[in-house]
Amino acid sequence: MTEHTVTAYDQELTAVAGRIAEMGGLAETLITDSVTALMTQDLELAHRSIAQDARLDELLLDIEMRNVNIIARRQPMGQDLREIMATGRIANDLERVGDLAKNVAKRVIAMDSGVKSKTLAIGLEHMVELTQAQLKAVLDAYTRRNAEEARLVRERDSEVDAIYTSLFRELLTYMMEDPRHITQCAHLLFCAKNIERIGDHATNIAENVYYMVTGDRLTDERPKVDETGAEGGLDR
Amino acid sequence: MTEHTVTAYDQELTAVAGRIAEMGGLAETLITDSVTALMTQDLELAHRSIAQDARLDELLLDIEMRNVNIIARRQPMGQDLREIMATGRIANDLERVGDLAKNVAKRVIAMDSGVKSKTLAIGLEHMVELTQAQLKAVLDAYTRRNAEEARLVRERDSEVDAIYTSLFRELLTYMMEDPRHITQCAHLLFCAKNIERIGDHATNIAENVYYMVTGDRLTDERPKVDETGAEGGLDR
Repeated sequence: MTEHTVTAYDQELTAVAGRIAEMGGLAETLITDSVTALMTQDLELAHRSIAQDARLDELLLDIEMRNVNIIARRQPMGQDLREIMATGRIANDLERVGDLAKNVAKRVIAMDSGVKSKTLAIGLEHMVELTQAQLKAVLDAYTRRNAEEARLVRERDSEVDAIYTSLFRELLTYMMEDPRHITQCAHLLFCAKNIERIGDHATNIAENVYYMVTGDRLTDERPKVDETGAEGGLDR
Repeated sequence: MTEHTVTAYDQELTAVAGRIAEMGGLAETLITDSVTALMTQDLELAHRSIAQDARLDELLLDIEMRNVNIIARRQPMGQDLREIMATGRIANDLERVGDLAKNVAKRVIAMDSGVKSKTLAIGLEHMVELTQAQLKAVLDAYTRRNAEEARLVRERDSEVDAIYTSLFRELLTYMMEDPRHITQCAHLLFCAKNIERIGDHATNIAENVYYMVTGDRLTDERPKVDETGAEGGLDR
């Protein structure tokens, strides 16, 4: 390969990596906006979040076509191929994160009330903060090609699961206390589940970053908090 | 291209199509088994369903690697490339269907009781039957390269959504009638949602079959039943 060719190839990979970064940033914004809309009952922000999701779909298609072009023209092997396959999967996960955040925004519109219980609001916010931190950390690990950081993100997912489990119980208790809470809490159950699943996608991304960098798969079951015997690991 | 080359290429595509068919069959079995486990409280069947899902993950990886090899060695264009891209996406959707069915099986284990209400059982079974029919129809459309059948599957998804909406309401009513139903119904809400989402994946597959065959995208919003202003279209 001439130096010219190598440089062009690097540019192609950099272009894809840039789009992954853009998707990551958009996904983070979408989570923040849709949860803010939920907490403040801001219908306008909810509608704006829903509209933003289309850009993630576009970027996914763009990354897929770029990867196909690179594979067809370069026939990459080994580390190069791993990198391309990993970016494709990461793009897929980020698109799913966008969908899940969008669904929280749709619930804001469907619910005719905000989050009235202080305890529930604190629990939800805590889970969202942790999930956001996980997504940010794994995107950093991707940018820095840091396998160890990726492994740590995967390990920390059990914390998100633990908060989800306790939130699930709190929501059921709140429903039992007063039947008038049931409809709202049913929607909040789905919102909480969506955020927990965003955490699962951060874990998927972590596994792909680890594989991309090391060529090894993190195959052992990661630790799952399963205190209830019910909620832990339900989406794995 | 020599005739020999064309034949080898066809064989490669046929091998991928065969694996899609295998994934489709497995996904259908997983849905049947996990819902049967739910209806009959059959924990053993639930555990078996959960174990089956691993094969879907393997097949997805296998299809991805085959597609990458085809793209790298053949540099397909136009219809050929569309076909390969579409099979990759269909494989992804089928893997997600397996995950969703697996999660229903996991709920069977998490719930300490079966579906006690006759009305709820009938509603759930009706939704599952329709979703299964949708999945079967779209896999037939894929095998027969039939764009019109695919378009019809997409159109019929509103029926699944309508049953889901009414089931969602029934579950809430059942919760309000007696707080002792709340925990069980919360799990059933997620089961119903998972089945509704399997319907959405059948719709995604339909869109990819249509694109694969015609080269056109079904871009117009498909009709969504949204009677509650709440549940219709929440996962789109």
